[in-house]
Amino acid sequence: MKELEKITPLEQDFAKWYTDVVKQGNLIAYGPLKGTLVFKPNSYGIWELIQHYLNEEFKELGVQNVYLPLLIPERLFNKEKEHIEGFNPELATITHVGEEKLDEKVFVRPTSEVLFADLFKNTVESYKDLPIIYNQWANVVRWEKTTNPFLRSREFLWQEGHTCHNNAIEARQFTRTMISLYAKFLKHYLAIPVIVGKKTPKEKFAGACSTYTIEAMMKDGRALQAGTSHYLAQNFSKTFDINFKDSNNNYDFVYQTSWGVSTRLLGAIIMTHGDNRGIIIPPRVAPVQVDILELFAAKNPLVSKVSKSLYKELSRIYRVRLDNSDKNPGFKASQSEIQGTPLRIEIGPRDLENNMVTLVRRDTLEKIILPIDDVKHEVKNILHDIHENLYNLAKHRLDTNLIMVDNYDDFKKEIKEQKFVLAPFCCHDAEEQEIKDQTGATTRCIPKKLDRPFKLAPCITCKRITKRFVIFARAY
Amino acid sequence: MKELEKITPLEQDFAKWYTDVVKQGNLIAYGPLKGTLVFKPNSYGIWELIQHYLNEEFKELGVQNVYLPLLIPERLFNKEKEHIEGFNPELATITHVGEEKLDEKVFVRPTSEVLFADLFKNTVESYKDLPIIYNQWANVVRWEKTTNPFLRSREFLWQEGHTCHNNAIEARQFTRTMISLYAKFLKHYLAIPVIVGKKTPKEKFAGACSTYTIEAMMKDGRALQAGTSHYLAQNFSKTFDINFKDSNNNYDFVYQTSWGVSTRLLGAIIMTHGDNRGIIIPPRVAPVQVDILELFAAKNPLVSKVSKSLYKELSRIYRVRLDNSDKNPGFKASQSEIQGTPLRIEIGPRDLENNMVTLVRRDTLEKIILPIDDVKHEVKNILHDIHENLYNLAKHRLDTNLIMVDNYDDFKKEIKEQKFVLAPFCCHDAEEQEIKDQTGATTRCIPKKLDRPFKLAPCITCKRITKRFVIFARAY
Repeated sequence: MKELEKITPLEQDFAKWYTDVVKQGNLIAYGPLKGTLVFKPNSYGIWELIQHYLNEEFKELGVQNVYLPLLIPERLFNKEKEHIEGFNPELATITHVGEEKLDEKVFVRPTSEVLFADLFKNTVESYKDLPIIYNQWANVVRWEKTTNPFLRSREFLWQEGHTCHNNAIEARQFTRTMISLYAKFLKHYLAIPVIVGKKTPKEKFAGACSTYTIEAMMKDGRALQAGTSHYLAQNFSKTFDINFKDSNNNYDFVYQTSWGVSTRLLGAIIMTHGDNRGIIIPPRVAPVQVDILELFAAKNPLVSKVSKSLYKELSRIYRVRLDNSDKNPGFKASQSEIQGTPLRIEIGPRDLENNMVTLVRRDTLEKIILPIDDVKHEVKNILHDIHENLYNLAKHRLDTNLIMVDNYDDFKKEIKEQKFVLAPFCCHDAEEQEIKDQTGATTRCIPKKLDRPFKLAPCITCKRITKRFVIFARAY
Repeated sequence: MKELEKITPLEQDFAKWYTDVVKQGNLIAYGPLKGTLVFKPNSYGIWELIQHYLNEEFKELGVQNVYLPLLIPERLFNKEKEHIEGFNPELATITHVGEEKLDEKVFVRPTSEVLFADLFKNTVESYKDLPIIYNQWANVVRWEKTTNPFLRSREFLWQEGHTCHNNAIEARQFTRTMISLYAKFLKHYLAIPVIVGKKTPKEKFAGACSTYTIEAMMKDGRALQAGTSHYLAQNFSKTFDINFKDSNNNYDFVYQTSWGVSTRLLGAIIMTHGDNRGIIIPPRVAPVQVDILELFAAKNPLVSKVSKSLYKELSRIYRVRLDNSDKNPGFKASQSEIQGTPLRIEIGPRDLENNMVTLVRRDTLEKIILPIDDVKHEVKNILHDIHENLYNLAKHRLDTNLIMVDNYDDFKKEIKEQKFVLAPFCCHDAEEQEIKDQTGATTRCIPKKLDRPFKLAPCITCKRITKRFVIFARAY
């Protein structure tokens, strides 16, 4: 039984705080290969709930789940030039089986566009086959140089959706539908507010015509790209010859989209809601929503009896864990907190004398002493309140730390302050690179709409008048 | 829109029949790398339901889901000698990232015993941490020379459970608990009867002390190993130094088990229940349980109206698909059959004149004409009957094709007839190999109990008196 160690305060060293939280929250262990992770029950449980609820949302849109191979032969991958250039330095390459050398290199998928393209080529014949709306839950490998649990690891889990449409308008619309779905999902399930927008040409996905993104703000002010949706146009369908016969018997290439969210979302949860006691898991995706702690059970047999009966009753509705071990009360409470369980119920002899129990909220640490009979009803309200509170705190932070500037000096100052900076910007690649080199900030997105007025203004670098406003930030 | 092609009759060429069924049932496409598969919605949907229901069963036993890395460094894999020898020729080996050569070879997991061992070593300290009961859903890669969809492919999906216990009795018991769980699961969800037994020393898992298996009989008489549960004893814990302090403050190594089922189960479903029209999916794991077909909708607007209302009503309870396309009625029925939907409801103008619709069972092809109002109630009964019928047919086949012999001549004759053969056998490796070379049959298991009397008898090869009866068969 491991002792709980101290977590470095986040004000003191945010990066160290993050590492402490993931290690101590029963979230991860490091894999034997550098940059790989073990998802322990407390993090994998969140991911399973994300899968469950996203699947429900996807189903409403007619998404069908499939599973494509992990392994991609070199010749297939190399077909799409821009795509291979984007991934080449990160490709895990299989050259041997046992002692035997293969005739052709095989890559472990970093993403599956080319696999889906190959599948669609052999599936699509007529406009009657369209649209095809497929999704897969899968692991992908990208050999990143610097790694960070959940945020950037050599293997991560994600879902990647891939669709084919018979016209560009429908495909573009679907690209936007998916980014909206993600934004709503993060709000309603993860209590994370995001900014929705389009990536600049420099930051878009290799092989896409345009990329939409949702950008979240972490507690240190840095941005985290939490999901993307790409309009691929006919880039892959022309290269891979995915054509169909339309209703007039003419041939055209399909219009495609792809979209995904990954286990980065776990990092987003930690850095949006976490505090100096560890992770705080939003109730809807918490593997354990309520911890019931038996305290001083030896002093009064009623403690165990009430705990068990409450556990049984609440388990019908919530995900509940009962800690009836002989660990000391302080340890039990700390363990529940460090693992981020949204609500714990402490059942001890003193409260029971008055037929009461104590509820402790993980987000506010507020203690609520209640008659036993009221618990069931109140748990519902409290879990709801916790979600709302987490969301509102994060939304307030995002709103107050998004700063509009009209010149490069102010821009640099605000970036230094770890703000999201909204600035008029022409989006030329060279200038974007220069800003990155000088300030560490990258363009996060061209927001679709913001709660503040836009107007024509001179670009912060080239001074030409532009109506394009872009959000910059340092990012994970 | 692809035309439906003919399926080769199974009596004519079983292997060709199988290939036709998997290709035409919207089940698979071949991946671009030889020996890899695309799981299309109709097969991946079955796998998702298997996952869902197995997760429910696992939960009852306190199993926690986790996810471990795909990639294993060579030094870790090589620690357990017997284990590495078992897998070495099939190991997909990463030597490069992009153009850069790695310092150490990295293997794509063929199974995860060594990864779990590494995790447990860093997790377990005290008997209070035990038992640990983990499971992961994952893809694994084994570079098989000959491949066959679902049965033997270079990548497959599975769950692998891994546990640590503080004593051998509990671990042995857990090994048996899991194999029983699998046997019940196959019966109740997949309608597949199995024989439960122990593998011979020659056929056990590399690195295990003993291996339990469930063996199913396919329609051609060959065996399919459908799930295994291994008692690993302290083999891995001693090699990887997974020790714990017991209640007397003495150190011991943990006792381990591992157990799994894979996407082979999809092959088992096809070859247990399929017929010359294609796959028949057992109702409980059918992605679509009921197909509603609108027929001649143009002739009477009531067709669409009734179809939609029935679709809406049944969707609350069942997984239902509505085909309201303008394809011809024969095509719609064939498509439903070839995809193995257990029940279809045909809604056409003629039946509707009498307020009736036609239900067609996929298993018996029986047509049932019913008043619309009775459909909802009857669907439940019919789906239940289909499951029972599929199971009973398979059970009868298994029972009548399991033959007991007491000499090697009869043994060879029965194996040639594609029977399961139960014979007294001493389980010496050399003789087991000889039988395999001569007859193509392998030992499937030493059954725990059978519905027929056992007695001491001379071994079919060495003639020594033995009480050990072993089942042999040709196998997938």
